[in-house]
Amino acid sequence: MSEIVLHNYFRSSTSYRVRIALEMKGLSYAYVAHHLRHGEHREPPYLAVNPQGLVPALVWTDGHVLLQSLAIIEFLDEMVPEPPLLPADPLGRARVRMLAQMIACDIHPVNNLRILTSLRAVFGASDADVANWFRHWVNETFEPLEKILAESPETGRFCHGDAPGLADICLVAQVANNARFDVDMGPYPVISRIAANCMELPAFIKAAPKNQPDAE
Amino acid sequence: MSEIVLHNYFRSSTSYRVRIALEMKGLSYAYVAHHLRHGEHREPPYLAVNPQGLVPALVWTDGHVLLQSLAIIEFLDEMVPEPPLLPADPLGRARVRMLAQMIACDIHPVNNLRILTSLRAVFGASDADVANWFRHWVNETFEPLEKILAESPETGRFCHGDAPGLADICLVAQVANNARFDVDMGPYPVISRIAANCMELPAFIKAAPKNQPDAE
Repeated sequence: MSEIVLHNYFRSSTSYRVRIALEMKGLSYAYVAHHLRHGEHREPPYLAVNPQGLVPALVWTDGHVLLQSLAIIEFLDEMVPEPPLLPADPLGRARVRMLAQMIACDIHPVNNLRILTSLRAVFGASDADVANWFRHWVNETFEPLEKILAESPETGRFCHGDAPGLADICLVAQVANNARFDVDMGPYPVISRIAANCMELPAFIKAAPKNQPDAE
Repeated sequence: MSEIVLHNYFRSSTSYRVRIALEMKGLSYAYVAHHLRHGEHREPPYLAVNPQGLVPALVWTDGHVLLQSLAIIEFLDEMVPEPPLLPADPLGRARVRMLAQMIACDIHPVNNLRILTSLRAVFGASDADVANWFRHWVNETFEPLEKILAESPETGRFCHGDAPGLADICLVAQVANNARFDVDMGPYPVISRIAANCMELPAFIKAAPKNQPDAE
């Protein structure tokens, strides 16, 4: 049994998600930084660990390499059940996974660094074009997300009741990302309230980008 | 208790995923088609069901509306355990979710209709630009996916052993999508073999786009 290793990057919001889950579960881990803007994740030593060349990758204590932040977080939740990151009932789990995937499938992938870089390289997108693209796709999903959270009796102090979980993890990481592109959070009071509630918790604070060893 | 209702579109690959899962579980459902190219998913009656205005949305027998294909499929797997769509062990589940999310997070979102439409509208992308964009992001993930599947002793007749599951569902829907943009599948013999094995199964055949009532 070895130490858990997290290959990640302070500013990567998918890395941030996994760091929050590790902190919530009380798991210590070795932090290995890969500077995305310097292309360190596309070099052979890291590709030998993760052929996809993306962060995060988590090396479990038995040497298994796990990719994809939501898959990693559900694995951690199964290995260390307390505190639970998903509700106990199937409909509750479906709701939390839905909220998480609205962010993880419909916002983050179209706004991550590799896509923004491609928009510049392939279509000559300017800084303003890139910022507009980012904000557009955030708003396309944050509008229905806000509506769902505001209208559901299942929303509490956090996305699902009064304990933080998988959906809150994704929400906080996205809200942090939004700040880099000056997304107007005015139309999203419920999302903002939940993010603020999360940021009072030690696990979310310790996992925040600015508190990582590779933070600039 | 009412009938299960699936709001979907024959050509939507996320709809295709849910249709396969419903067929595998032996669940009958009412098929409600929304023609994406005509914008039917953005009209008020559907927005009242699904504020996100995307397909698929599944209305469960108790009236709950579930969004996000992977969340829906895991819900179906929890409600109807046989045949299982995820392995019994946590590391196996993490591997299957990882393979599914490589497709569901890293390929599909950047290549779906709303993104391709935006590339045309915002950046003046031509048909050739759009096809190149689509193929680029498929190849970026299919290369490591092929490598992972080819090198893992856990790969069998399907992505994980000899029974089809969540990863195969995502793989088949993506391979069907690829055909629309002439993605060269030559470099992907393992992915192609698994897709072919799936397409021998009644659930995958019945769920295929061309076999839906709204197919053109």
